[in-house]
Amino acid sequence: MQGEIEHLIHAFSKLPGLGPRSARRIVIHLIQNKVKVMRPLYDLINDVLIKVERCRVCNNLDVCNPCSICINEKRNNSQLCIIEDVSDLWAMEKGGFFEGKYHVLGGTLSAIDGIGPEQLAIDSLVRRLESGDIEEVILANNPTVEGKTTAHYITERIKHLPLVISRLAYGIPIGSEIDYLDEMTLSAAIASRQTVLSD
Amino acid sequence: MQGEIEHLIHAFSKLPGLGPRSARRIVIHLIQNKVKVMRPLYDLINDVLIKVERCRVCNNLDVCNPCSICINEKRNNSQLCIIEDVSDLWAMEKGGFFEGKYHVLGGTLSAIDGIGPEQLAIDSLVRRLESGDIEEVILANNPTVEGKTTAHYITERIKHLPLVISRLAYGIPIGSEIDYLDEMTLSAAIASRQTVLSD
Repeated sequence: MQGEIEHLIHAFSKLPGLGPRSARRIVIHLIQNKVKVMRPLYDLINDVLIKVERCRVCNNLDVCNPCSICINEKRNNSQLCIIEDVSDLWAMEKGGFFEGKYHVLGGTLSAIDGIGPEQLAIDSLVRRLESGDIEEVILANNPTVEGKTTAHYITERIKHLPLVISRLAYGIPIGSEIDYLDEMTLSAAIASRQTVLSD
Repeated sequence: MQGEIEHLIHAFSKLPGLGPRSARRIVIHLIQNKVKVMRPLYDLINDVLIKVERCRVCNNLDVCNPCSICINEKRNNSQLCIIEDVSDLWAMEKGGFFEGKYHVLGGTLSAIDGIGPEQLAIDSLVRRLESGDIEEVILANNPTVEGKTTAHYITERIKHLPLVISRLAYGIPIGSEIDYLDEMTLSAAIASRQTVLSD
């Protein structure tokens, strides 16, 4: 196999979710469609490479800095939603139901992977909370061991501040089938059950 | 989500084997590792975009044209192996057991996908066989319905030429377990059984 092609396949094979076989298929597809697929992809990568950067306030990715959410005056400055990654921000924004602002941590604490507080945007979060007009912090960490540990650590770091600290509700997902849910979710849903009618 | 990022995710999601979720993961990974991953990938794509092209003789992909296999004087000019795609050529070359040359068809005949003989490199194959010093054609089409149809069509087109036409042997793959093999393969292996000892 030609060196240039081999190097490109190798680079693709290191991307998340891809391996040598899928990378090979992608590279062949690219070369077979240079004009329609490869060239446009190349230009789009260049666009993002040059224009997109991390927001210096919240770590969101955007072409302006601070990002379009941070500078949006229509959004609620008193609510701050803490999320692990930008993809969580995109998921929240898709529904358009949250009108506050965000703080992207950039991951979770993880002893195994050697990720401590200094690797995450926690210091900048504390500074932001100390200086801003935020009234409520909503912890939207993933309901995993690492996510919960991170949320717990953040709570400890900010509990002295005059803030309401909340977290996302645990419960059964809308549209799910109870039959298929794990016992942890069901147990959380029972524990947080809500009164429909009381006499 | 920012327009530039959205467009890049969309472009990735259209690559073979990828969808919106995996494309999102890849793009986030790229942006988070601009220097170490995104920039090198960008440069490698550029390399292939500029340097790699289809060999005008055999349709292989290479940085020289005719390709390094076609111009290699140590290879056997009398054997020509017909394959569907460049990835099949790479698979053949990995072992280094075949010393002849190749002809890449660029796919298979497929009525459903509207791929006829004119979409494949069949006319150029016939011209090559008519003018060259090739003595044996080895049909290495995939053992699928479309592959076999394509091999049959090619046989019809070249059977008037003074050539030996052969195909890859069907049988049980080395290292496989007979228990797990499909009946088509086993049936082919029985039909093509080889004598070990005869009295």
